[in-house]
Amino acid sequence: MTGRLPSLVERRKYLRAAVAMATASRRAILRRMARGYGRRLKADATLVTDADLEAERVLRREIGRRFPEHGIFGEEFPAILPNADFQWILDPIDGTLSFTHGIPFFGTIIALHYRDRPIVGVIDHPALGVCYSAGLGLGAWCDGRRLRIRDARAADLPREIVSASDRPRFVLCRSARAFDALVRAHANVRGYTDCLAHTMAAEGKIGAAVDYGVRLWDIAATQLLIEEAGGRYECVYRGRHRGLPLYGIICGKPRVVRWLLRVFGSGGRKR
Amino acid sequence: MTGRLPSLVERRKYLRAAVAMATASRRAILRRMARGYGRRLKADATLVTDADLEAERVLRREIGRRFPEHGIFGEEFPAILPNADFQWILDPIDGTLSFTHGIPFFGTIIALHYRDRPIVGVIDHPALGVCYSAGLGLGAWCDGRRLRIRDARAADLPREIVSASDRPRFVLCRSARAFDALVRAHANVRGYTDCLAHTMAAEGKIGAAVDYGVRLWDIAATQLLIEEAGGRYECVYRGRHRGLPLYGIICGKPRVVRWLLRVFGSGGRKR
Repeated sequence: MTGRLPSLVERRKYLRAAVAMATASRRAILRRMARGYGRRLKADATLVTDADLEAERVLRREIGRRFPEHGIFGEEFPAILPNADFQWILDPIDGTLSFTHGIPFFGTIIALHYRDRPIVGVIDHPALGVCYSAGLGLGAWCDGRRLRIRDARAADLPREIVSASDRPRFVLCRSARAFDALVRAHANVRGYTDCLAHTMAAEGKIGAAVDYGVRLWDIAATQLLIEEAGGRYECVYRGRHRGLPLYGIICGKPRVVRWLLRVFGSGGRKR
Repeated sequence: MTGRLPSLVERRKYLRAAVAMATASRRAILRRMARGYGRRLKADATLVTDADLEAERVLRREIGRRFPEHGIFGEEFPAILPNADFQWILDPIDGTLSFTHGIPFFGTIIALHYRDRPIVGVIDHPALGVCYSAGLGLGAWCDGRRLRIRDARAADLPREIVSASDRPRFVLCRSARAFDALVRAHANVRGYTDCLAHTMAAEGKIGAAVDYGVRLWDIAATQLLIEEAGGRYECVYRGRHRGLPLYGIICGKPRVVRWLLRVFGSGGRKR
């Protein structure tokens, strides 16, 4: 099932295309921010806005034009060609709640997986004006700057910042004990939420991001960004919720991830 | 003890001076960020850097030059004229941990209290390039833009974002049950920490900031910023730690603060 991976040259082409698509969706989102947008609650009680829909439409149009034989799996519209080898996984606005509250920490997630293996990952922050990207074997980047995570020293562990998602998301993954163990064990737990925590981990600005109760599109770009930057990525929970897969991940500096796995091993749900 | 407050004209003069001082300390901090700085652990195991020290020196020099008869109470150096009616309260870098990790959410806090009553409050975010300021009766501002908090509607309470400090800081205030009640009662608890949570509350971007285990300089500008923007500010905990007063506050949209007071009333420490 693994098959031959696309060559480095092909991967570079896909990476460039993904970054160009992020530029297009960013433009659509910033335009909506300036002009205003409608919003409504979806069936699962999460928010969606016209900006989410328009950005995903822009991305789907770009993919259809460039790679008509590729599949698309996005948050807001039905899947296209779900059996294709190449799958584009899209979250047009990760952090819609931040977006609607004027908090600039939301992002657009664009990933290309080949037979379930991530080969391109992009997280764009339109309101911050920065784009993170990675390609398998091509490194991780913030715009033109290469990202290289420096591992934490043991002595610095107490001052490493760990970002965790909301407790109810851990509850969804029957992992509330992991959350409770973390906030008791560590003095610097923050909740940046959204993909900002993932890009901060890829920068090495935080020691690790712990994100539970997330969908495939929330994490589709993260593994590559972290690993290509020299970090460690672990999927520690796989379950289902409302009929769809649900995940829990830990990613960041290898030593911090290792330490969190120990904390969760004793306080979290057995994996 | 209350005495006559400085006139509106005088308050405006102090506000303008505080904003000018923030410009000077911002310049010093950005210079240090560009050139590098030393850091060390203080006796209380928190970090201090050359940038903290230099920014506070800049502020003290400015205050000494402009208002030599005023007192100064700052985080990094001994108090000056502690019995003066006017007291400048300074935290040169609130969020030193963020600062040293390259996270731009730290800020400089400058407040002027007259006989314990706040009359000027400034929170400057050097790395974000924005300055928040308020004067008693003069409104709250982000640079030239007036801040006006729109209260939350009851139906929107579940989607209001609440920022809370780390659990260990609640523990310091014997209020761990308040933290635990909050993260169980609400789906959108985030930990932005540092004064960024306070300025986001003054913007109305988050519903409320809940900050426990903080010192006077951490909150010296916040009450005025929030109240002048039309929000509600409550000091819900006063205690002592290592011989110095320690506080817990809740501030933000009136309806969210009211709701949190109820959550904490049942789950938190009795006040």
